This record gives sequence, structure tokens and C-alpha cells, in this order.
Amino acid sequence: MQAEIISVGTELLLGEIVDTNAAWLAQQLVPLGVNLYWISTVGDNQARLVEVLRRALGRSALIIVTGGLGPTEDDVTREAIAEALGEEMVVQPALAEQLRCFFQRRGYPMPEHNLKQATLIPSAQALDNPIGTAPGWWVEHQGHVIITMPGVPSEMKRMWREQALPRLQTRLGDAIIVTRTFKTIGIGESRAEELVSHLIHSHNPTLATYAKSDGVHLRAAAKAPTEAAARAMLANLETQVRAAIGSYIYGVDDETLEGVVGRLLRERNLTLATMESCTGGLLANIITDAPGSSAYFRGGLVAYTPELKARWGVDPALIAEHGVVSPQVAAAMATAARRETGADVGLGITGVAGPDPLEGHPPGTLHLGLDLRGQVETISGVYGAERRQIKRLAALNALGFLRRRLLERDDVPPAAVNKGF
Amino acid sequence: MQAEIISVGTELLLGEIVDTNAAWLAQQLVPLGVNLYWISTVGDNQARLVEVLRRALGRSALIIVTGGLGPTEDDVTREAIAEALGEEMVVQPALAEQLRCFFQRRGYPMPEHNLKQATLIPSAQALDNPIGTAPGWWVEHQGHVIITMPGVPSEMKRMWREQALPRLQTRLGDAIIVTRTFKTIGIGESRAEELVSHLIHSHNPTLATYAKSDGVHLRAAAKAPTEAAARAMLANLETQVRAAIGSYIYGVDDETLEGVVGRLLRERNLTLATMESCTGGLLANIITDAPGSSAYFRGGLVAYTPELKARWGVDPALIAEHGVVSPQVAAAMATAARRETGADVGLGITGVAGPDPLEGHPPGTLHLGLDLRGQVETISGVYGAERRQIKRLAALNALGFLRRRLLERDDVPPAAVNKGF
Repeated sequence: MQAEIISVGTELLLGEIVDTNAAWLAQQLVPLGVNLYWISTVGDNQARLVEVLRRALGRSALIIVTGGLGPTEDDVTREAIAEALGEEMVVQPALAEQLRCFFQRRGYPMPEHNLKQATLIPSAQALDNPIGTAPGWWVEHQGHVIITMPGVPSEMKRMWREQALPRLQTRLGDAIIVTRTFKTIGIGESRAEELVSHLIHSHNPTLATYAKSDGVHLRAAAKAPTEAAARAMLANLETQVRAAIGSYIYGVDDETLEGVVGRLLRERNLTLATMESCTGGLLANIITDAPGSSAYFRGGLVAYTPELKARWGVDPALIAEHGVVSPQVAAAMATAARRETGADVGLGITGVAGPDPLEGHPPGTLHLGLDLRGQVETISGVYGAERRQIKRLAALNALGFLRRRLLERDDVPPAAVNKGF
Repeated sequence: MQAEIISVGTELLLGEIVDTNAAWLAQQLVPLGVNLYWISTVGDNQARLVEVLRRALGRSALIIVTGGLGPTEDDVTREAIAEALGEEMVVQPALAEQLRCFFQRRGYPMPEHNLKQATLIPSAQALDNPIGTAPGWWVEHQGHVIITMPGVPSEMKRMWREQALPRLQTRLGDAIIVTRTFKTIGIGESRAEELVSHLIHSHNPTLATYAKSDGVHLRAAAKAPTEAAARAMLANLETQVRAAIGSYIYGVDDETLEGVVGRLLRERNLTLATMESCTGGLLANIITDAPGSSAYFRGGLVAYTPELKARWGVDPALIAEHGVVSPQVAAAMATAARRETGADVGLGITGVAGPDPLEGHPPGTLHLGLDLRGQVETISGVYGAERRQIKRLAALNALGFLRRRLLERDDVPPAAVNKGF
């Protein structure tokens, strides 16, 4: 099946917002086996939108339109589709009633111009919008499908998942497609691809790697006559993926690294603290991005000078002997973080964020220390090229390091009563 | 002048990357008075790209193409333009020589397939690419201009600014357009728009507001026969903008809030430290995003528990009396950060990041404390809706608060010799 996406909105042509909807929808189409050949952006202009729609009807079986479904005169997507197909928009009493209720729940009457959001054309069915006023349209016309959804990303994504995608899957035939994303940290994209190369060239299920800001993702998709069969194929693939690269996989789908580490700490009744140098607080910041992190995160120290490292418990003799940028200091920082805060687990990060070298070490040089109830370990490496990227990779790799150790060490004894001070 | 943008790359159609180039270029066209009517995305497919180019030549005077200039067979933008215009690509010895030098500097010989990056067609001039292998093309053909640039954003932006934009401005006629962006913190978009509403409706110079992740931006553009005249118009507008909203403006164009605060601290020979609760290290992280921040940033404390706040110098009686989420505790945290680190300036942040309320206060409740050599102040407010946004607004507003006080207090005495411990 050949598809195209049309993004509607003058704000896109003024560069006021970036069109993230098109990329998100494009990703959704890949595992469906639908070939996306064109993405077009047009403004809130009915004549130009009609022209783009007519061209799309001439070449694509599936046309996905986002934006232009608002209540104002500028919003012309419904009108343009009606014109392109030569059909008439008619207000649907049931949709109008839903819309009135939506406004009533918010405590004010429906403005009359919102009524156009309650219209359909004969070829269209409404796609419910539980979190906004604009229903979408599912249009079938001479073998073509036009899916029209709001431009607001949260409304669009929900409408796609709950209503458009199931209808599309039915139409695509017997096959059900199920996807699963494996998220890794501690391994680069080319190395990850190498380790799963024997799985990458399969056509069903498929597996592909993507370098993302929270690590390398592996996205798997399986196609089968039933959802159960597709899930079984994915489960089988997952076994092989985990055999090849499992220790680097920290989570699947919507899981975050900080969320997974938080869960592992909570399950083991362990508390965490950090001492950071070159990451400057980013590690603590990522840890506290997880809601509920106050249950296990005690606190963090950003020791940006050697004097503060010493004040907070790093032996100055160690710094004098090995330099600040050393595994020894990373280990001492992890231990000092525990001591200073009374936590069970300490993470220490020292290194060079750049742009200038430090103690003769190039930017990207990193030492990560972990103190797990007195068992101290370090890992070292050179990561990243640019200051913010180096900071990010350092913080994520420290969390990845902690995750692996928490999983390996089933012998960590249950936590003692909180030590306080 | 009517324009369109063509983004080339199969990775865009697979949703592997979001097309930020198109939005960036669209923003660039607004102040030029160029009307952008279409953005099209096509894959690495010569036939489809030729078709899109031919349609563009039929309706647009200016066509901007990004992507597809790499050395591989997949990269077909040059070939497609040559085909659409019926011209022949010829290797240019001078360009080939430049390319060989580029590889030589990196210490390896030029792969032969890179030679196609050294080609031109008769209608094209080369646009230098000082940071990559792919030169762009400036094509003039029967009244149309085609600008072709690499897809890598850093290469594209530099080529646009240094080469494409000046040529385009010359071609657009007498008028030179100069832009300037004023960046604010501590004020919302609607309030900002209100304060400059008397300037917003002007046609030349123009002024528009944009809500960005580092605060509300005001973008000004002036059009005049000479650059000097345009700059004079902008200077005049800037005076009015600063009169209306000046205390919130922390920087212009490429300046960052952390960079500006760092410069102010350095100029005053002041050192900085932080104690954070709900922001969890984000404030220290933003401060240390500025290269060279180790010159003035001593360190930070993330006191995620009341016990750690007390350990690091916040009077527990104060917490007992006012609660953790209080201006009193924010002030005490700022002072404690100074004492613990020996810094001249302390910033303290306490509040509720959510999703749950704390001490009866809703998410977004924030208290920011500042201790500037013993002069202690706080500001309080409710900012943001979602956890990460609340953290971000808290950290940025703390920096904005510090910036304003550093500028107001010209009476801050020169720093004493570093106190150490």
C-alpha cells in the first residue's frame, strides 16, 4: 500500500512549530508494511489544500491528514476534503450533542462556530476525540482511505492508536502487526547492530536499530494473522535479542532508564546518592525526573572544585596522586556520596566535559564509580564529542552501570533501617 | 516572492529523524518577506524528486532543497536537479582539489565516489561547505533560484547564513533584512505580548513572540535599503522593547541564560553555589552547561530529604515551623549553599515538582532563594504543569532572578580573596 502524509497549518510554514506529527506517523507506518512516499506541508488555504489532496488521490491509496480541524474560519481541512471529493458537509446531531456535552463539562456553552466540528460528509465516519473538540474523519472513497486527525500531538496520537490504527489494520487484511522497542545503554549503535546482525535481515519479524538521546533502541515488529501469533513471534525474537545483547537492555517501550533503576532500588529497599564533577548535576537531575524518586534518592553533591571534593570526603592525597580525572577519584566520590548522605548506594562521576582538556585528558574521558554497600567498582571510557552530549552519556552510563550491578547482585542483603545521621 | 522547501531523505519518510531543517528555514524566510507556500518531503528516489522539482519550478520562484548531497548512490539531489533542468553534471577540478585537501587534513585519501560532490551544472555556482564534504549549489535558471544545501543541520545553517542568505538578499533587491532575537525569562508569552502590544502590529520593523524552552523570545526584523539603515531601525525598536520589557531580557540571538549569568559573575569576580530540592540538580546542570563554568561555579547540593537539608545547614526548626515548601527554607538553602561551599552567591530552590502535592501545595509551587554576600531575598510563584517543565521553569527563573539582581546591585563589592575552607 502506497501512502502519503499531509500536514496542514500556516504556523508550520512560518516555522513557528516543528512538524513532529509527520515523523511520528511515518514511524507508525513502517511496521504496517505501508510505503510512505511523500510528506507535504500546506498552510491554512483551501485552494492549495484541495490541490494537494487531488494529487494525493491520484497516487496514494492511503492519505493521512493532520491539522486544520479547529473551529475557526482558518481551519479548512474538512472543507477541502469535501471539495476534493465533491461531497457536502452535513451537521450530525449526535456529534453536535457530544460537542455540547464536552463544553458543558467545562462549564460554558458551545460557541456556535464549533458546530462545524460536528459535520460529516457521506464518505466519512467520525473518529472520536475524547480529549479535544475536533473529531477526526475516516473517509473511504473509490478505494482510497483518507484519515483526518487533529494537529495537537496528544489528540492525534490517541486517536491514531485507539481508532485509526485498528481500522487500518482491519483494512490491511488478516495481518496484525505488533511492535516492541528494546532500549539499551552502554553500547554504541554500530556495536549493537553487529551483535544482532543475524536478526536484522529477517523480514518478519523485523528488527532495526536507532540511536536516541537515551541510548540505542532496537525496534521489533511482527506480522501475523492474529495478535497472539504476532506476540508469540515477538517473544521468540525477544529471546534471541536478549541472548545477543540482553545485559545492555534496560527497558522496553515506554520505560525510562531512571524509572527502571528507581524500581530496582525500591524492590531491594536501597537508597541512592550521587557525587558529580563533570556532569554538574545532570545525573541527579535525571534520577529525579522519575516521579516518586524521593522514595529512594537521598541527595546529590556537585563537587566542581577539588576543595569541595575534599570537604565532602574525597581524600586530597588520592587526588594529588592520581589526578581528579581518575578511576580512583571516581570510586572515592561514590563512597563519599554514601557517607555524606547515609545512602546504601553511591555513584561518582569524574571526567572531562570539555571543550578544553583537563590534566592532559581529552574531552569525553570519563570515570564512573559505584559503591554498593561497600563493594566498590569503576568503569572508564571515552564517550561523546560535545560538552552536553558528554555529560548526558556519562550520566546515562552511570545509571546503566548501576542497573546491571543491581541485577547481578542478588546477594545484596535487605536494607537496614534508614541510617539517618 | 513565492517559495517552497524540499526535504530529501528516506530516513525522513521512515520517521527516523524529525525534519527540523524545514522549520528553521521557514523561520528564516519570514523576515525576508518571502512567502513559503509548500514544504515537501521525498525519499532518496530520483524519479520522485525530479517530479517534485518540476512541480516546484512551475509555481515557485525560490526552491530550497536540503539533503541528498552525500557521496553514495542513494544521494541523488544533484542528479535530480540536473535532470529536471536538462543539464549535465561536470566535475570541477578546483572543487575536487578542495575535497582532496579536506580528506588529507583528516589523514586519509579521498574515496573515489566522493568525486560527485565536486560537480556542478552550468546553471550552478558552488556554495562552500567549510565543515563538511558536500558543497551546496546556487542555481539560477529562467528566473528561478534553487538553493541546495546538505541535510546535516550544522552544515546547512552555516551555509545558509554565510553564503545562501547574502546572495538571496542581493537578489531580493535593494532591501536588506536584519533580525535580532531578544530572549526573556520570568514572564509568560501572553504577558510579554501585552507589554509590547504597541510594537507588535508594526509592519517594518516587525516584532513577534515565541514561547521556547529557555523562555519567551521576541524576534525583531527590519528591512531597509542598506544594512546600516536596517540596523538603525532595529536599534530604535530595541530601545522601545527594552523600555517595555527590558528587565526580563537576558540576552540576544545566540546568548544563553547560563552564559550570560556566568559572564556577569566573572565580571564581578563572584563565585556561585546552589542547593536544590525539587529541581533535583537541574539548576547546577544548566549552570555547568556553559563552557568555562568551573571559573565561577563551586558546586551544588541536591538535598532531596529534610535530613540532608539540615545536615547541609538549614535549621530544622525553620522547616518544622514553615514547612519545606516555604520562602523561609528557600532563603536558608541559599545561605547554606554559600556556607557549605565558601561561595559569594547562593541559590536555593524548594517547591513541588509533582505529580503529587506536597505539604498541601499543588505541583508547580516554587520558592527561589538568593543570598548575595549576605543580602537574602526570595521570590515565589506557581509555574508549569508537568514535572519536567516545572523543574525547568524553576531552574531558569532562579538564574533569571540572579541575573536581575547582579545587574541592579552595582554596589556589590569586589570579591575578597577566595575563602577556601
